[in-house]
Amino acid sequence: MTTVNPISIYTKGEKLSNDYFTGNAFLTTLIPRDKNNDFAMGSVTFEPKARTNWHTHPKGQILVVIEGEGFYQERGQPARPIKKGDIVSIPEKVEHWHGASAYNKMIHIAITNYQGDQNVVWLDPVSDADYNAANQK
Amino acid sequence: MTTVNPISIYTKGEKLSNDYFTGNAFLTTLIPRDKNNDFAMGSVTFEPKARTNWHTHPKGQILVVIEGEGFYQERGQPARPIKKGDIVSIPEKVEHWHGASAYNKMIHIAITNYQGDQNVVWLDPVSDADYNAANQK
Repeated sequence: MTTVNPISIYTKGEKLSNDYFTGNAFLTTLIPRDKNNDFAMGSVTFEPKARTNWHTHPKGQILVVIEGEGFYQERGQPARPIKKGDIVSIPEKVEHWHGASAYNKMIHIAITNYQGDQNVVWLDPVSDADYNAANQK
Repeated sequence: MTTVNPISIYTKGEKLSNDYFTGNAFLTTLIPRDKNNDFAMGSVTFEPKARTNWHTHPKGQILVVIEGEGFYQERGQPARPIKKGDIVSIPEKVEHWHGASAYNKMIHIAITNYQGDQNVVWLDPVSDADYNAANQK
């Protein structure tokens, strides 16, 4: 059945576990994986200072920033500022994190492809030292 | 290679053919189909009164409205108003159209799944009578 979803992409959703996120981050599931879409699509709201742990995606992920500003960083590379309107295409198996900046929230849509039953592998938290370095550039 | 795309989701892009669209609609390709993403992702800007032809998608499509307001209509059903923040999950093989309202532009992201080499089948234009009926509700 077609649905005009009652949930907005700006809906804050449920708080995400601090096992995988530092600070206050929230998820609204927009489209679950189904027979047509071999990905899950959600909206993630990061309050200032909130960020994912380092992690990888076995089949990549696309981020669409729809509000605010933050960072995307791959392990061993400088953090890149991202802002409302930006797209990030994340390759498979690359260690990275994303999140808000220290002084602004960020909302992004995430389209996360599946490989088998898996679409993410969680790693260690982003240290305050790494996070502060991203913000001090 | 990872790219923080220089193109914004709000970029107006190139005018779309009036073979398949009525009025002024514009496309920016955001993510082409590739080895990880079995879909194409683009941003479509509809000026007021602009709309797609009737069409189907062999493996469905997701719309994410990021600006303005417009309509989504399946053949034989009433048109449904859609606005900034809304998601539409379009099933496979259902005849439908989408576009701006008569007095507002609309921008949506479209995530269009492939079946083989095909992701859309174009049909007839939306008549002025059908389009005006959607706007007069």
